[in-house]
Formats: sequence, C-alpha cells, structure tokens
Amino acid sequence: MTESSTSYTDVLIVGAGPSGLMAAYWMARCGVNARIIDKRGTKVFTGQADGLRPRTLELLDSMGVVHRALHEGCEAAEFSFWGPGEDGRLKRQEQHPIHDANASPFGNCLLNQGRIERFILDAIKDCSDLEVERGVIAESLEYDETLENSGDAYPITVTLRTLSEEEANPSPTGGSGGVRNGLFRSNITSDDWDDLIKRSKERPGNVETVKAKYLIGCDGAHSWTRKQLNIPFEGSTTEHIWGVVDMVPITDFPDIRRVCTVATEHGTLLVIPREKQLVRLYLPLQAVDGTSASLDRSSITLDMIRKKAKQMLKPFDFDFKICDWWTVYQVGRRLASNFTKGRIHLAGDAIHTHSPKAGLGMNMSMQDGFNIGWKVALVAKGIARASILATYELERKRTAQMLIDLDRRLQPLFVKEQEGDAAESTAPSNGNETLVDVIQLSIAFANGYVCHYGPSPLVHKGGEPIAANLIPGERFPPAKIRNQADGRAWWTTHLFTSDGRFRIVLLAGDLRREDQMQRVVTFSTHLASAESVLQRYRPEGEKLDSLIEVITIHSAPVQETDFFDFPEMLRLFDQERGWAYDKIWSDDECLWDRQSTGKAYGTWGVDKTRGALVILRPDQHIGWVGDIEDVDGMTGYFEQILQTP
Amino acid sequence: MTESSTSYTDVLIVGAGPSGLMAAYWMARCGVNARIIDKRGTKVFTGQADGLRPRTLELLDSMGVVHRALHEGCEAAEFSFWGPGEDGRLKRQEQHPIHDANASPFGNCLLNQGRIERFILDAIKDCSDLEVERGVIAESLEYDETLENSGDAYPITVTLRTLSEEEANPSPTGGSGGVRNGLFRSNITSDDWDDLIKRSKERPGNVETVKAKYLIGCDGAHSWTRKQLNIPFEGSTTEHIWGVVDMVPITDFPDIRRVCTVATEHGTLLVIPREKQLVRLYLPLQAVDGTSASLDRSSITLDMIRKKAKQMLKPFDFDFKICDWWTVYQVGRRLASNFTKGRIHLAGDAIHTHSPKAGLGMNMSMQDGFNIGWKVALVAKGIARASILATYELERKRTAQMLIDLDRRLQPLFVKEQEGDAAESTAPSNGNETLVDVIQLSIAFANGYVCHYGPSPLVHKGGEPIAANLIPGERFPPAKIRNQADGRAWWTTHLFTSDGRFRIVLLAGDLRREDQMQRVVTFSTHLASAESVLQRYRPEGEKLDSLIEVITIHSAPVQETDFFDFPEMLRLFDQERGWAYDKIWSDDECLWDRQSTGKAYGTWGVDKTRGALVILRPDQHIGWVGDIEDVDGMTGYFEQILQTP
Repeated sequence: MTESSTSYTDVLIVGAGPSGLMAAYWMARCGVNARIIDKRGTKVFTGQADGLRPRTLELLDSMGVVHRALHEGCEAAEFSFWGPGEDGRLKRQEQHPIHDANASPFGNCLLNQGRIERFILDAIKDCSDLEVERGVIAESLEYDETLENSGDAYPITVTLRTLSEEEANPSPTGGSGGVRNGLFRSNITSDDWDDLIKRSKERPGNVETVKAKYLIGCDGAHSWTRKQLNIPFEGSTTEHIWGVVDMVPITDFPDIRRVCTVATEHGTLLVIPREKQLVRLYLPLQAVDGTSASLDRSSITLDMIRKKAKQMLKPFDFDFKICDWWTVYQVGRRLASNFTKGRIHLAGDAIHTHSPKAGLGMNMSMQDGFNIGWKVALVAKGIARASILATYELERKRTAQMLIDLDRRLQPLFVKEQEGDAAESTAPSNGNETLVDVIQLSIAFANGYVCHYGPSPLVHKGGEPIAANLIPGERFPPAKIRNQADGRAWWTTHLFTSDGRFRIVLLAGDLRREDQMQRVVTFSTHLASAESVLQRYRPEGEKLDSLIEVITIHSAPVQETDFFDFPEMLRLFDQERGWAYDKIWSDDECLWDRQSTGKAYGTWGVDKTRGALVILRPDQHIGWVGDIEDVDGMTGYFEQILQTP
Repeated sequence: MTESSTSYTDVLIVGAGPSGLMAAYWMARCGVNARIIDKRGTKVFTGQADGLRPRTLELLDSMGVVHRALHEGCEAAEFSFWGPGEDGRLKRQEQHPIHDANASPFGNCLLNQGRIERFILDAIKDCSDLEVERGVIAESLEYDETLENSGDAYPITVTLRTLSEEEANPSPTGGSGGVRNGLFRSNITSDDWDDLIKRSKERPGNVETVKAKYLIGCDGAHSWTRKQLNIPFEGSTTEHIWGVVDMVPITDFPDIRRVCTVATEHGTLLVIPREKQLVRLYLPLQAVDGTSASLDRSSITLDMIRKKAKQMLKPFDFDFKICDWWTVYQVGRRLASNFTKGRIHLAGDAIHTHSPKAGLGMNMSMQDGFNIGWKVALVAKGIARASILATYELERKRTAQMLIDLDRRLQPLFVKEQEGDAAESTAPSNGNETLVDVIQLSIAFANGYVCHYGPSPLVHKGGEPIAANLIPGERFPPAKIRNQADGRAWWTTHLFTSDGRFRIVLLAGDLRREDQMQRVVTFSTHLASAESVLQRYRPEGEKLDSLIEVITIHSAPVQETDFFDFPEMLRLFDQERGWAYDKIWSDDECLWDRQSTGKAYGTWGVDKTRGALVILRPDQHIGWVGDIEDVDGMTGYFEQILQTP
C-alpha cells in the first residue's frame, strides 16, 4: 500500500521529543496550521531525560500543566556532596537545599521524560486537533531560497514516508551498537496506554509530499534535518563512557534519596532521586578495566554497571533487583554552527549535545522549542514580522554555548582520568575549582533564572534604571500577587499564560495617591486612543486584548482600592462576559498564603509609589522597560516587530 | 434484546453521584469485588453542586487527585457580607478571608460537580477495572435477614435492568415539573467526552439478577433503595422556592468574584464565584409575586431569576448573556430515621436533604460515602469485624442532624418571609443571631475541622491527656512535615494515603535524647515481636505493613538525625525495594517551604521531647491516643475491630 499525494502546511515540525512538542504547543495554542511527525512508533515511556529545572516548570505553569509534573514527579529537595574523609571513608561533606523560594515558585522536579511529553501532548490536545504523526520519517528536503521572502509561499518541500511497524519500533536489543535500552512496559500509565492501542490500529505505507512555509527540525543529535542543510556540528565525541541506570536501590547509603555527587578514587557518581522509589545513577565506566580507550560500549552489561556502583559506594552496601531502564553513552560535546537556515530552524539535541551531568539537556531543548515556537507561530500567522526569527539563534546559541562550557568544566570533576593522565585528574577538585564551586556558580544559569538574551528587536536594552531587577532579555522574576476582584493569590508564572499574547504590564504604583492615579489615567487614556498599539495591531474581528494584553499590578493593599476605581481600559468590558476581573492585581501580602508576601515591587526593584511600565514577550521574557509616561518607547517596541493588520 | 442471568458481587453500589463514587473508590482501592450502577446514561456535566470544603479537599488529597481540583477550581478567597447602609443603599459591611491556613492545607474550592466526579472516576480507574454501569436501574430488592450473620452469604438479591437510551437520557425540557436543567454541552472537557462516545456504543436491554453481600444505596433524595427498606424520611418540604443560576455576570457589583451574602428587602442573595468566569447565584424567589404559597415551581423562567437578581443587586447594574445552567428548587429538610438496615447502608441525599445554602450537601455526601466505603470494604474482605459497620450511622447521623440544624438556622436569615409574617422576618438579623454569627460559629463544622464522632470500637475516647489536640473521633490535624531520607516537606493529608490501611503514628519525640531513644527502641522491639498487631493481623502472604502501617514523626531537626539511626521496624526492609524511606518524618522547619513550620507538635498539643502514640483509621480519623509505652491500649484497639487471619 503505497500512495503519493501533495499537501500543504504552514509549519512542519520534524521530531516529537521535548523540543518538538514545545514548538508544537505554540502551533496548537496559536491556531497555526501545522503538522508534527516522529519516526518512532510510540512516545518514550521509560528512561531518557528526567529532570525539570525551575524555569522549565515555570513554562509548564504558563502552559497549564505544571500541577501534573509536581504531582507525579519527585522534588529534589537537597544536594549532598560526598567524598573521602580524613580516614579515606566516604563522608558527607556538604549539604544544601536545592529550591530557592525567593527565585522561583518551583524547585527541581524529577520525572521520566515520557511523562513530561505526555503533559505537553495533553496541553496540545486541550487547545487543538494537532496530533503527532508517529512512525513517519522525512525522506527528502528541498528548500527554494527564491521564495524565502514571499510571505505566503511554500519554499520547503519534504517527502514523508509512513514506516512499517518493524521500522518504527526497532527491537530494543538491536539498533546502533547493540546497546539495550530496556524498554520495559511496567512504567506505562493508563493515559499513555490509550495512545499505544490507538497507534497499533494505524496502517503504514503512505508516501506523501508536504509543502511547508516553515520547518522546525527537532530530530535529535543525529538530526536528519541538520544534515540536509549541511550545517556543521562542531566538537568531538570524547572517549569517556558513562552508564546510567534507573533502579530501586537496596542500600544503606544515607543520602540515596537526595541528589548527590559521590567523589571516589574511581571517579564521581551522580545520584538522582526519582518518582516511584526509583533512583537514577550516572557513573563513569572507563575504569572498569582501566583502559577506557579500548572499551567497547556495546560490551557493557547491567552487571558491570551494578559492580561499578557497588565499588564506588563502598563501604556502604548497594544493590538492586528492580531496574526500570539503563543505558551506556559516550560524552559528545557538539554545537551546530548555525541554528537557522532561511525558514528552517533547528532545536534541541539537533543543535547541541553534551553529557547529561549538568541535568540540563531536556530543559535546554524544551526552552529552545519554546523560544522558536512562538516566533514561528506569530510569523506564520502574519502577526509578527519575519525579522524576529533571527533572534532565535541570537538568543539560544549563546545559552547552548554556555551549557557546553559548563559541561566542559564539570567533566574533569566527575571523571577519574586514565592512569598516568595527571593533568586533569582526581575528583573532587580540579585546580582550584571544586564541584561545589562550579555548581554554585552556575546555579542561576542552570535553573534558568538568567539566560543573557542579547539586544534585538525583541529585547530593548538600556533605558532608565527605573526597575533595577527587570532586565530586558531575562524572564520576568516570578512573584505571587493578589487579584483585586477576588483576593486570590496567583503566581505571575500562571497569570502570564503562554497563549501567544504580548503583555503590557503596568506596574501602577500606589493609586491611593492622587498624582499617581493621574499618571495612570493619562496612560489609560492613551491606550484607549486610536494611536495606541492595542488599537493599531488588533487583528481584524478580534478582541482588543487578543494580541496585546494589559495587566495592571499596583502596590496598594487590595482592601484600600476598588476594582472599579481603575480606568476602564485596564479592566476591559466585554459585551458577553462583562468586566475582565483577571486584569488587575495587587502586590499585597496575603494572610492565608505565606508565599504572597507583598514584596514583589522590591523583588523587581521598582518604586512602590511611581511604578513602571514593562513589555513581556509571549514567553514571559522582558522586552522593554520604561516609565509610565514613555508611551513612545512602548509604541516603538511593537512597531519594530508587529505587522499592521 | 432481553436476557436474564444471575451474577454475584460482594458489594453493589446503587448510584454514582459523589457519595456513590466515594464508596466505590474504596472498593477499587481495596480490591473488593464490587459493582456500581447509575440510572443516568451519562455523568453530569454542568450544574448541581459546586463547592469543596477543606475536609473534602483533604480526602481528595489522600486519594491523589486534589491537584486537579485545585487546578481547575476557583479558590473562594474572601467572604463579604453586604446589606443596606444607613442611607438604605447596599454596602459592604464585613469582609473575611475564607482560608485558615493553620487549620487545613486547603481553603474552599468551587468547581462543578461533574468535574469532581471525573476526578474520583479517574482515581478509581487508576487502581482497578471497576467501571460505573450507566443507564442501569435496580428494579427489585430482596433482603434475606436469615443470612445476615453468615459471613460469606449473599443475603441481597437485586434485579437490574439496562435502560434504553431514551430512558437513560431524559430530555432536559421534559421530566418532573417541566423545569429545564439547561444541560448545555459547552462545559464538557475532553476527558469526559471520551466517556460519552464510549457510552453511545453500548446496548441496552439486559435484565440481570445480582446477588450481593452488601449494598450501598447512594441514589439521591428520592432514593429507591430507601423506599424498598421502608425507612422513613422525616421532615418537610417548606414552601420556600429558590432559583440557582450559573452564569457569566455583567455587573458593576464590586464583590461579584467573592463569596457574598447580599441582604436586601427582597431576601438574601448568595454569590459564589466559580471556574471559567462563572458565578453562581442562589436567590429566594417566593417574593416574585409576593405570594410564595401559590407559586408554581414549574412556571418559573430564567428571566424571572434574572429579574429578581437585578432587583436584589440594585443600585448596581446586573445582567448576563451566558448561562451555563439554572434550576429552581424547594427547600426540603429531611433526615432518614435509619441509615442502615442489616447489610444495606444508605448515603448522601438518600439520608439527608436540606437547602444548598450552607454549601455542604455534596461535601456531606462525599464524606458519607467515604465513611461507609472503607468500612464495608474491609468487612467484605474479611479483614475487619462486621460490628464496625454499626459505627456508620452513629457517626454520620449526628453530622447530618447538625447540618440540618445549621440549615434551619440559616434559612430565616436568607428569606424575606411572606408579608405579614413578622415573627421570622427581615434579613440579615433574626433575633439576636446574625448571618455573620451563624457562619462564624459553624465554620469549623462546615469546613470539616470537627465532626464529633462518638465513642465506638473505632473511637476510643478518654485516656491520658498527652495529646491535647489529637481528639479521638476527629480527623488528624494536618501539618506539613519533612521526610527524614530526602528532606522534602509533605502534608500529612497526602502522606496518609486512603489505601485501606490503619496507621500507627509514632510521634517519637526528640531522639537526640538517650532516654527517649530507649523508649522508641522498646516500642519497636515490641512491634517486631510475634505478639504485635502487625504480626497478628498481617494478611497471609502480604507484607508486614499491608494492613497496619507504622509512620514515625519525630521532633528533632532532620540534619541532626539520620534515617539509619531509627530501629529497623520503623523503616521496614523489603527484599526487592530496600528500606522504606517514606516511613520516617520530622517536624522540622523547612527553609524553602514556608508551610512547613516545624510547629506540628505544638498544633497537636504533644510534648516535643516525649511524643505520643496515635492510631489513625483508614479515613485519617483518630481512633486512639496513648503513651509510647501503652502497647496494651494499642493492641486492644485492634483486637476489637480486626479479624485474625
């Protein structure tokens, strides 16, 4: 059964791992005509990545699914550093809490990748009919550069082929290098199972030509898309061989349920507590026989991993009977020289690979997909100018480079180098830099509190220092604030939904003061005028807040202000739904919620009386900061990036 | 297509509303052979009850689904009392926060009943194959009292009939009194929709004879089961007619997103903010034409409700265009004279009806089903003695009576009585008692912080006052405590899973003290002995903690104690899963979680050094409290209620 047909889509996403799904979320949420394919016949169920950093959890919150990750996942509460004591015995050397409640609503959450993919799939299902086409590969790619600047053209032509069941579901003992991936089905939950059953009913064999306006390649480290574009993937595969195992430990090691590094003469072991009593271990294997260079990856067995772990955790007892998944990998540190070619963008492992020790691979990949997703969605819809797409590489290449640098610094601290290679040896310290140092110094980057996005049409640096801690390019620092109409306390990460809208956040200051109220009234009067960006960029037939939403956060107590005191433009009236009660908020302490402290203005570095004006991009990154009077600055921001309808 | 057959089930539940589903949850969780039927062809999707009180949310937490209710529901943060000011104009008179963070992890959550049923259905699905058989009614019931005391007998015989589609899904404009229930499908979410599709494929027409050991009748105010048993339903239907409407308001009433009572010359309006911008209004209708006695319920239209609401909220503007559901009801206040007959138990509206004004109907029904469910499950499994079933009526009839009394006290404060009936008139005050008074006085009962369960084999009153605030019969006061092995902070409501197990909670005190450690070691040595209840009541072939789980909560900081310092009996070793890291906890302050204050011992009224010993029933109610040495008291508790395997 082989057919050939041609179809059209605005956006084609190749690969439905974490980065592809994040990009697909935006297509679903923004109503973009899109397709997403994946060569595997099913989603993953066990193993792979397993850590969600605070910033990624914030993204999931803005997508409405974080509660599921927190419910199913394992919070990593504490980090312990173990190493030999004076007597040579393993000893806990330091212990730190992981979650900085002042930096994010969320700590670190550990859960297998398959569940995280499920949550994104469900978020997609909740707002669209977009489904992943599984067991489908792209076979050829043509890109017609002459059509690149014609908005409605389809410069991309891809041939898709539906795989047979055998091709889409390779035997776990086969495949490259013969390494077993241990795809046990025990971990499959009922919502995944429904999908599996459905899949089994679909028939393979179709060949189809797809013409697309945009393509996002999220097809992993061996990216087919990247290869078609001849984009170099620079770096090297080192000789270090690592084992990873997800198992239920039987041990008297006291910190087996904490994140630990355990530095030993055999290298450094990484312990990651997980959901369902699982623990993941990462361990260097090249010392199994002392000659890593000659070690064949495919020759490694689960028992070799077990033996190594036993050896490293001595004098504690260690063993396991239940193993959920295990694998062996070689550290490769590579960066694509370009993330973008014309209307084709790459994301995730297709553009950066590194060891999993920093616990950042999936997070970075998800953040890549999140970053390119909203930009392509808004451009494909004709809302934003195509020029904003250039910011993708600008923003994400720097973070990818930082990640690879971090991985490079961590590497010697984990690996006991080959005998005789004294230069880079002996964990836990490398020169003057210890593992504790590196982790502490990189924590803000690793957790996603800072990302260093550079200046661009989407990020206006400079301006008045009226909001010391609202840095254009960075994410909006989360705070829990209270709704003026109902008194509830909400995290800004939940309020600023990832729905494709830009937001003007009016930090209105203290409206009990007459002069401040006057400033806010003047600003609102501008918003209501025909010159305001709300009016000028309002898509035809849509509501006034459909592309740019105005959210007001004032600094007076809820009890001393009234929802109806605020100008009408700040609480838009809708003929069917009445006043918008979700637009006006207060940085007020909440008696029954200790997370809502009334100190958000302080966190943001904004004057409680005079406030400030902030533009947030659809991904909650700060685009611009100005004074409440700086209507020109605000307008200029949007003029550079939006298309007039 | 009509067939007849006979089948057997241990437990038959008639009615799959909130109380029936809660009972069914226990059957699913405990692995009881059970069936549950409902006459309606589908679950409800809109309207009906909508409020979850803190205690009910705690139950959902122990069932693993509270995160979904909190995510979808609307937190009711503040309660406002409105009434005429000195100038006669409506004025906010008082405002109070609703959530007392010291009393429960949860506040009040508002969400339509259909979603709450969905969460319980999913909790059932997660642990069993038990499914609600919809469009099925019970047609005849026989009860053979002579078999009542034969453990394995089936004294109950019920004939079930599968309804036709038409019978199971009566037209919303038809039915009793011609009142439209506005079953709009707009509110159906995707997880409900899957069920609907599935339902439509099933065929009606079967007749089946079912023999059951136990029956739980959860079939509503007009309970067929109750009628078969000739149990009187005492009380009366008053003449007060109320309207209820779920709509999206268009109004400038400032507290429309807060819970409010609005006292006017036309009676008192109740405002309940809800999910998805909905607001529910309850309003007395008998004054529409001034002569309630002659008002025909079926003659009331949505426009009459609209008109009344507009009138009551003056001088504020009020209207709506989107209506999700509305209905009209008459206040009936009735209590079944018996909740139990032999092996047949009634729960929910089948045993108590009252007005919805206290916002307690669904909560009480869920708590009924929860209470009878675990008892029937454990008795049906042969684990507990049949005598514990008598505690159901003892415990729940008193709370039902209290609820009806509360409703009776609230009634005159809401209704503007008929002209000329001066004795009971004029909201908001009735005699010296105001609405604020009644609500404040009843809050601990309404929220489920107290329930006044009387002494029984399941509740041993008295004993030493070593835990001032751990009152046998009451729920265990929730606290957030830290896990010894991983440092995470958990609510006890989540830790004490509703899985059918009793729990011995060892409040171990301060184990840094040698003498206290000795007390704990002595206790643990007893637990390990052949005489301990763990050993004596351990079901054959099951793990030592399968029926009675020991949880230790000590009072020293996590950092100053070690998991492996605790006696082995407190952290049971499993051949496959190693040590039980989820058994040992600390009442320690958590740096990154402000809810974990390290003050739980204080809340419980327990000495931080010496601790106490507590038995929790499977529903987290306190069964017994004693000293750590009082092994006899502890043993005696279990001897009265459990069967030796």
